[in-house]
Amino acid sequence: MHPAFEHVGRGEAIRAALAADPAFTLVEPDTWGIEPIAAVHDPGLIRFLGSVWSEYQQQHPGTREVMPDVFLRPDLRTGMGPTVEPASIEARLGWWSYEVTTPITEGTFDAALGAVDTALGATRLVLDGERAAYGLCRPPGHHAGTSLYGGYCFLNNAAVAAQHVVATTGVRVTILDVDYHHGNGTQQIFYERDDVQYVSLHADPVRAYPFITGFAEETGTGRGLGTTTNITLPPAADDTVLLAALDRAVEQVAAFAPELLIISLGLDTSIDDPIADLAVTADGFERCGAMIAELSLPTVVLQEGGYAVASLGENVRRWLLGLDRS
Amino acid sequence: MHPAFEHVGRGEAIRAALAADPAFTLVEPDTWGIEPIAAVHDPGLIRFLGSVWSEYQQQHPGTREVMPDVFLRPDLRTGMGPTVEPASIEARLGWWSYEVTTPITEGTFDAALGAVDTALGATRLVLDGERAAYGLCRPPGHHAGTSLYGGYCFLNNAAVAAQHVVATTGVRVTILDVDYHHGNGTQQIFYERDDVQYVSLHADPVRAYPFITGFAEETGTGRGLGTTTNITLPPAADDTVLLAALDRAVEQVAAFAPELLIISLGLDTSIDDPIADLAVTADGFERCGAMIAELSLPTVVLQEGGYAVASLGENVRRWLLGLDRS
Repeated sequence: MHPAFEHVGRGEAIRAALAADPAFTLVEPDTWGIEPIAAVHDPGLIRFLGSVWSEYQQQHPGTREVMPDVFLRPDLRTGMGPTVEPASIEARLGWWSYEVTTPITEGTFDAALGAVDTALGATRLVLDGERAAYGLCRPPGHHAGTSLYGGYCFLNNAAVAAQHVVATTGVRVTILDVDYHHGNGTQQIFYERDDVQYVSLHADPVRAYPFITGFAEETGTGRGLGTTTNITLPPAADDTVLLAALDRAVEQVAAFAPELLIISLGLDTSIDDPIADLAVTADGFERCGAMIAELSLPTVVLQEGGYAVASLGENVRRWLLGLDRS
Repeated sequence: MHPAFEHVGRGEAIRAALAADPAFTLVEPDTWGIEPIAAVHDPGLIRFLGSVWSEYQQQHPGTREVMPDVFLRPDLRTGMGPTVEPASIEARLGWWSYEVTTPITEGTFDAALGAVDTALGATRLVLDGERAAYGLCRPPGHHAGTSLYGGYCFLNNAAVAAQHVVATTGVRVTILDVDYHHGNGTQQIFYERDDVQYVSLHADPVRAYPFITGFAEETGTGRGLGTTTNITLPPAADDTVLLAALDRAVEQVAAFAPELLIISLGLDTSIDDPIADLAVTADGFERCGAMIAELSLPTVVLQEGGYAVASLGENVRRWLLGLDRS
């Protein structure tokens, strides 16, 4: 057991770095409510996340972090598949999640709602004419699926933003995910869709969380066949290797021809990151931003992972300057 | 995090209590090998359990307890169900298990094989003419399914014994499970079968592990419809309540008319148990044994749970004396 790598100090470090640079204008998010979230997530998951803390406290007073122990596997009973949400809080934890790195604490649901508000606020700025806007979302979102939370993620900020764009404007959207980890949630949400493309660069799931998804052979299904792209990175990938992979990703984006781009920005590809094994520098991050700017698309950048708190703010700042300067 | 309640001291306490009583004759188990296990469990699970410790040590040297973090859920990717065993050790842990209370340590596989040998040795004694034999199995087995380990269980001792009886003699067998926890593994293994009955008394899964299975409405499927019986117990159930439930269970057994009985004996229904909420006494355990003896069936008793080490040996002894005296 160790303290969670995803903590409030990350958001504070990023905010401080951007606030100190006059190139950035800080805007507070407003409140969007449940409706845009319910367009992406199972209403049962939203209800569960809204009540699990107080329900668990009633049954197990004093618990500070709520975690699942037992998971709903279809092979627990011959012929048994997921049917309806079970009764007990313990079974429901294992019904709505798939892993054990994501404790629920007292403020989790409010924070998750705030992260979605931040994503939607940044999206509105871009829809209203800004060339780019960055949402300092915390907790992150890309591991949260339609009906599953996990990987420090509860609600999928980028997916809610993309769905909001599609629903309100009808334009095609690409989510380009550059976090160290595969965004299994975002992939699942849009896996059958042809109006939202998902392109992800990430560490090969043979060695990296989430281990189960993110392989190159996963390319979408049904109408969505071909709209999912997974590009995996070897250990110790540096600026050169990352930029070469990003170049391939950008080609995929250009081929889809979206009218709006959402970036799931993880800085855990950094050489400093305590839980990853890549070697990207601040210069490399700035060049990534610049390469994406060449797509000349209205761009919403949403914060995902990145756990090297000492360099996190500067790495975000440099990435965004790259996007802005080109 | 706390030390596991399932530890070697349990077996030592039971052995000491039985060795001190001249009513019991202790016999060492012999070795049966993989074949009877492979008649019940997925060969992939057996291979995995045999290699996971050394594989994990190679990748993460110094780990003392190997645990899954991420579980294979069919809803991780739209249209994705279990297909083939994944590549990484992390994904394979979550492929072969369903929960996080069951660390794998250096001696786990050898211990699991030893527990099966113990179960098969006790079974042979009964097939050879003993009216009853008790197998001091550790680790327990009833949570292990065809392709899943968990709940301190790796290989399903009772299921392997039952399958061995069916395969070698053709007689009908009942597994009567009186552990505090539902034996989800045993239920799953025989859920579609009509030659092995599974009857379980256990704490209502609304409040107790495994939370997901063990409800009264689970009665088998296909040819097995009606051969699974789940009887749930309320909190604080005492000798009277337990014996009334056991009486119902015994009626079910008699109706199935097996020729051999296997008891999954958990003593975690004890008033002393540190992880359960029932109130059965040593007298109650003796009366349970006596009630089962009235079925007049050759009986193999296999150890499952029970975590109150101070009274565990005496409770097993009294239960077995009840079975022997009537």
